Amino acid sequence: MLTPLVRAIAVAAPLPCLGDNTGDIDRLKKVLAPQLGGDMPVVPYQRLSKVAVRFRAAGFAGAAIINDMAGTPVLVDFLSQPPKVLAGMALDLGTTHLEATLLDLSTGAVLARADLENGQIRFGADILTRIHHAAKEEGLFELHRAIIDSVNQLAAELARSSGLAVAEIRALSVSGNTSMVHFFLKINPCHLCREPYIPMVNAPDPCLAGELGLAIHPAAVVWLLPSVGSYFGGDLISGVLASGLDQQPETCMLIDVGTNAEVIVGNREWLIACAGAAGPALEGGVARMGMRAGPGAIEHVRIDPATGEIGYETIGKGKPKGLCGSGLIDLVAELYLTRQIDIRGKFRPQAAGERLIAGSEGYRFVVVEGKDAADGQPVVLGQVDLDALMRSKAAMYAILTTLTNQVGVAFEDLHRIYVAGAFGRHISPRQAIVLGMLPDLPLATYEPVGNSSLAGAQRVLLERQARERCLALAGKITYIELNVNQEFMLRFSGSRFIPHTDHALFPSVPFFDGE
Amino acid sequence: MLTPLVRAIAVAAPLPCLGDNTGDIDRLKKVLAPQLGGDMPVVPYQRLSKVAVRFRAAGFAGAAIINDMAGTPVLVDFLSQPPKVLAGMALDLGTTHLEATLLDLSTGAVLARADLENGQIRFGADILTRIHHAAKEEGLFELHRAIIDSVNQLAAELARSSGLAVAEIRALSVSGNTSMVHFFLKINPCHLCREPYIPMVNAPDPCLAGELGLAIHPAAVVWLLPSVGSYFGGDLISGVLASGLDQQPETCMLIDVGTNAEVIVGNREWLIACAGAAGPALEGGVARMGMRAGPGAIEHVRIDPATGEIGYETIGKGKPKGLCGSGLIDLVAELYLTRQIDIRGKFRPQAAGERLIAGSEGYRFVVVEGKDAADGQPVVLGQVDLDALMRSKAAMYAILTTLTNQVGVAFEDLHRIYVAGAFGRHISPRQAIVLGMLPDLPLATYEPVGNSSLAGAQRVLLERQARERCLALAGKITYIELNVNQEFMLRFSGSRFIPHTDHALFPSVPFFDGE
Repeated sequence: MLTPLVRAIAVAAPLPCLGDNTGDIDRLKKVLAPQLGGDMPVVPYQRLSKVAVRFRAAGFAGAAIINDMAGTPVLVDFLSQPPKVLAGMALDLGTTHLEATLLDLSTGAVLARADLENGQIRFGADILTRIHHAAKEEGLFELHRAIIDSVNQLAAELARSSGLAVAEIRALSVSGNTSMVHFFLKINPCHLCREPYIPMVNAPDPCLAGELGLAIHPAAVVWLLPSVGSYFGGDLISGVLASGLDQQPETCMLIDVGTNAEVIVGNREWLIACAGAAGPALEGGVARMGMRAGPGAIEHVRIDPATGEIGYETIGKGKPKGLCGSGLIDLVAELYLTRQIDIRGKFRPQAAGERLIAGSEGYRFVVVEGKDAADGQPVVLGQVDLDALMRSKAAMYAILTTLTNQVGVAFEDLHRIYVAGAFGRHISPRQAIVLGMLPDLPLATYEPVGNSSLAGAQRVLLERQARERCLALAGKITYIELNVNQEFMLRFSGSRFIPHTDHALFPSVPFFDGE
Repeated sequence: MLTPLVRAIAVAAPLPCLGDNTGDIDRLKKVLAPQLGGDMPVVPYQRLSKVAVRFRAAGFAGAAIINDMAGTPVLVDFLSQPPKVLAGMALDLGTTHLEATLLDLSTGAVLARADLENGQIRFGADILTRIHHAAKEEGLFELHRAIIDSVNQLAAELARSSGLAVAEIRALSVSGNTSMVHFFLKINPCHLCREPYIPMVNAPDPCLAGELGLAIHPAAVVWLLPSVGSYFGGDLISGVLASGLDQQPETCMLIDVGTNAEVIVGNREWLIACAGAAGPALEGGVARMGMRAGPGAIEHVRIDPATGEIGYETIGKGKPKGLCGSGLIDLVAELYLTRQIDIRGKFRPQAAGERLIAGSEGYRFVVVEGKDAADGQPVVLGQVDLDALMRSKAAMYAILTTLTNQVGVAFEDLHRIYVAGAFGRHISPRQAIVLGMLPDLPLATYEPVGNSSLAGAQRVLLERQARERCLALAGKITYIELNVNQEFMLRFSGSRFIPHTDHALFPSVPFFDGE
């Protein structure tokens, strides 16, 4: 039995007569209450007249539209017939990309999927630039307008491909990082990036779509997954929800790899999290040849150690356009294993052969030649991109060691490590271990959970229990700020080698010394 | 201990630090919850940014402003210092007049009083004309604008005389008849005057002042006393509250005399009500010389049976301007007792002497000559006014007998009869009995309760229990529609004489037969 964010409840009220002169709204509330567990629904002032007029016009029978807002049933509309489909939109509100699904809220079935580049990118690819842009009020308004426009585009596309009007979308759940949620709500994020890194709000109360300028039904309930801190957003809470980390007896870990590396460790008793800027290397659209996991993205790479020949797989099996996160990790690990880069992540010209081209910005390695690529442009990996990846992987491992050290848990004690991240569908834990990004544990310890941000948004769209769990979770997670952590900085320096300065930490990875 | 509609709660939150990165709003909610009985307050979207910015600007300490909205604590503002006075406005939203007080919500003290003619009168003195005017949307908007303008004027006056800014008024309670509440909320009242006489809403949920275009603080909570039916409004619920009718073991009655005669009978077990159009005779500002109980209104009249000399008392002891309801009842009763009018309420020229003047619109009786009146204009009572009063008093008695008959209660069984009505401060039950308006019972049975509409509005402004009692009451009262009641029509005809066609019903009143 689903308990979605919005429900259509069929009612047939007794007709008004001289012996029963209950007001229209009161009459409707009265017949609804028994179907709402005895709760009287609330009618917001701006919907009062519309609901009353439609209820009467429908002859006092039809379907009441009830939002679940912070546990309170809110009566927002009335239809003469129950809607053929009661549709809700789940949204992964990413810094770079938005991904959304439209769900049939009575069955949970996916009606449509869509994704779109975040329209805010024209104000800055990375989130810090945007936060600075939002320091002025008009900047914040621009960023808000840009993200709302993008969400409206997505909603229109979802509606079109489902044969619905966009105003038939009557609920929206949003899973995003803390900064994106601030932009979405048009609230100033300026304190997010200044010590002590405080959001304006972690768990905003639900609101109505019309208040945000969204094109879906103006009385659609908008529910945002709560965040825990500036660098631990609702997208991570989604990950916990999707992995079930918070319900397990054994201690497990969840890692989300993106612009930020976000990590949470714990079990059903306790949960501790931290996050750090991992650099933009792994985020599609930021690294020069990086792209989101989508058609044409190289997601797996193999280099023949004997011939140096490069084999790859693209999503959709078509010609390659670029590298998504998992492809990038594969490529760099293979470059290391074939000794074309050294332990510091620098190209070795003597080994890399003719694929390596020297240019004004340093070396560039041609992964796919222009003639074999989708748009005629070669897919290349520059030294600049490599350096960025090295910082990212170092940050990730430093975060993992700092966090586990803080709670006194050894990597070996972890029952399971869930790897989330929308940037690559299938991160290969083995290749990430080779790079020294993830700890050298048996591969069975790792379990990919895909785009858990979207999965979480879908869950909260459909299940009240999931919504309550999210709110409880946000209050339960202890967040450790790493931006100013000295231990982290030390560990970061030690991790800027492949796999690590302390080779004993990675016994399974070949170590090529002294070149 | 008062539990007003809005409270200022002093808080000093722990400062944000790296070890405590709770979001600003979440931080504030967390320190508030223990002071709200453990309830987490809700922050409406339109107040989110303002509250967060002010909380931070105040150094995370000051006073949170919390509305009590349908039992839910709603956090709407933050001040760096607790306000010197937290002010709330109680409003009696009358068809003809508005009356309001400004209260200090922490003590219940009255800071200021004000009253004003209802600005809607230019669209029609009686409510039916206005309801017809509201049939077109622009008509409804005009009426809404007019009443909001009047309320804003009153609020400005209250603020001025209390030395406050109008935006410092942070709550408003409204007690009005059902039609006035519809106009106030800008919802169409067209079904109120058509069988089966159904309001759009009886118990609207509270809203914020900004949503209605009010000039008081935009986040001020607006709480409306619920109504029971088209002709039984929140003003009557106020009367029940003020009289305590709903808490008494003995069966009592409450009568509100105005444009409509509204009656409720019952005890702590049951309550039955009805109402009927009593005609405009008793409403100040409608009868030609009628006026509201205020300075210059004649509120008591005596006629010397020997000399015919008229003695009167005015409110404020100044020169007379007109007659308020109680003065009108006194005058007509005295005219009957001195046989200057007959049992049908017609002037007897042979007895009335030179005060009676024949004119194109029938006889006019000079109560006060121009030289003795406040503005040089004589205070007169026309035959037209007398006829209207006769209809009113007949309607009132017919309503009382119909209602008691329906519930099987004799007048003698009533422990107490409360007489409410803003139109006159002190209705004399004796004179009302002479006219046959009220039943011929010992005078001790009658207890005047004054302007209980305003008193009720004040109670709900200050006490949560009173608010809950109102809502429970509105659901508990059985309403009988008299507009189509045959028994009522028969009883109405029998009551169009002084005191009544059946003289046995009024043994204490002299009966002058056969003239």
